[in-house]
Amino acid sequence: MDNKKNRVRVRVPGTSANCGPGFDCLGLATTIYNYLDLTLLKSNKVVVESTGEGSENIPRGKRNLTWQAVRRLLQEVGRADEFKGAIIRTENKVPISRGLGSSSTAIVAGLTAANEILGSPLDKHGLLKLATELEGHPDNVAPAIFGGFTVSVMDKGEVQTFSFLPRIKLKLIVAVPDFELSTRLARKVLPKNISMKDAIFNVSRASMLIAALVEGREELLPLAFDDALHQPYRKKLVPGMTEVFEAAKSAGALGAAISGAGSCLIAFTSTKSQLENKIAAAMVEEFKVHGVKSKALILNVDKRGAQILRRNFK
Amino acid sequence: MDNKKNRVRVRVPGTSANCGPGFDCLGLATTIYNYLDLTLLKSNKVVVESTGEGSENIPRGKRNLTWQAVRRLLQEVGRADEFKGAIIRTENKVPISRGLGSSSTAIVAGLTAANEILGSPLDKHGLLKLATELEGHPDNVAPAIFGGFTVSVMDKGEVQTFSFLPRIKLKLIVAVPDFELSTRLARKVLPKNISMKDAIFNVSRASMLIAALVEGREELLPLAFDDALHQPYRKKLVPGMTEVFEAAKSAGALGAAISGAGSCLIAFTSTKSQLENKIAAAMVEEFKVHGVKSKALILNVDKRGAQILRRNFK
Repeated sequence: MDNKKNRVRVRVPGTSANCGPGFDCLGLATTIYNYLDLTLLKSNKVVVESTGEGSENIPRGKRNLTWQAVRRLLQEVGRADEFKGAIIRTENKVPISRGLGSSSTAIVAGLTAANEILGSPLDKHGLLKLATELEGHPDNVAPAIFGGFTVSVMDKGEVQTFSFLPRIKLKLIVAVPDFELSTRLARKVLPKNISMKDAIFNVSRASMLIAALVEGREELLPLAFDDALHQPYRKKLVPGMTEVFEAAKSAGALGAAISGAGSCLIAFTSTKSQLENKIAAAMVEEFKVHGVKSKALILNVDKRGAQILRRNFK
Repeated sequence: MDNKKNRVRVRVPGTSANCGPGFDCLGLATTIYNYLDLTLLKSNKVVVESTGEGSENIPRGKRNLTWQAVRRLLQEVGRADEFKGAIIRTENKVPISRGLGSSSTAIVAGLTAANEILGSPLDKHGLLKLATELEGHPDNVAPAIFGGFTVSVMDKGEVQTFSFLPRIKLKLIVAVPDFELSTRLARKVLPKNISMKDAIFNVSRASMLIAALVEGREELLPLAFDDALHQPYRKKLVPGMTEVFEAAKSAGALGAAISGAGSCLIAFTSTKSQLENKIAAAMVEEFKVHGVKSKALILNVDKRGAQILRRNFK
């Protein structure tokens, strides 16, 4: 009976950070989801059950990332002495270590579920603060919490996020290669210094991208997804990157980018173009030319972010 | 009689480029104007008459910038053999060499007026292309032509501009120091390379600025006007820059920036705050502390860009 009121089920979207020029600040939520069924326990015991993507490698017990998020929230709101354990059941659809924000879903799911059980002591901005602290950056946790597109700014160590829904109906085509890429490695290949010219390149494209999305000006998007800050350095980590981008655009995509730190590549088209299947096939085919096996996901922009699906069930 | 149909009067707004983080891509048009009364002549003669700001130094004859713009347009549309001269009468309100786009107004006025006389062979994008070529960059000519805020992207040597009106009613407070600053010198102090961290700083703030302006989210603006790419290097050219920014913010401004390459500083507030006079006084006072005599202009965002005021008059 005790368990019943301490149990919720949440759904958290996978996310795609950077979106080309918006390196380390722009992100979007997609309609691929991880699910968490969380029960808070008074006893000092953490049980983890997982099915789906990456379930064989998810840490059990107290090293589990979702548990660490739950515990951080319990500490934040002063309830850590009351709840010392949890039953964590996850069903994961978001591919692991591919640049679709799987670790962010684990963190955001834990925070959102525990917060709900405790009577919502924190609002979404409070959850964002803890999630950013746990993840180290806001790029994926922000869209996972808020949905839509997010612009995040770090200001004196604090994150500020603005989320918006684009006035263009977008289809997202994600080519998922059969290899993982660690964010740490993808960061290591980046230079510490870059040219002023490349900085201006990204400032102008990110500005154009936001303006085009918010004002619903599809014709401006082909200018807006290019990047000079991170993708040129990361292309050696994703064989065929440039060619897959070109194949997507030749098939009608408005633009293409590395999803987060990779390995996924993401292309954008408008719903009304109905070119998503053609673009998906072109991307998988071009990856194959470069010796990379991949599968394509055709997704929409998730509008709602993390959602509570069930409360207080047995 | 011939002169009558070859004469128009145009008005072109002064502009403020960069707006903080949008270095070399963002600009806005303001409600301070230069006026041009242009008559195209079949004879090979250029007459320049000028009153107002900087009139004593404006080149007469064929070195005049407005004439060069007129001639460039005549060449572009194949009418240079027909019209070999012009009478150029200007009344200038925009301060010279202060970062308010005075040279852009001369170019845009010449192009707009000549285009009108010739029956509008070019549209605004055609005028933008020529203006960018003459000015060397689109930052000021784009808002001078389109009005509002503009995002400009250079793509394979071609300029693409998107203009929008913010959903926040802004007052612009411009502190105009009594010294000129050449754009060439203000460019010379900039480094060729900068840190990735500073690039990301500007990408995130420019993105936030566009999103906040377009979506009408005033509360996000205080995060959005900061810059790490050009202002830190230019502050030595504008004594008291940082302190004037702080004085403006202490008086209630939402943000502050160098206008273009300086020497003007521009602060932003919402119309409804009614703080513009207080902010103006604080900026002038703080400049004075640093030994700089200045005057303040309180302006709005110009919504229309270059306008034809009269046609075919004697």
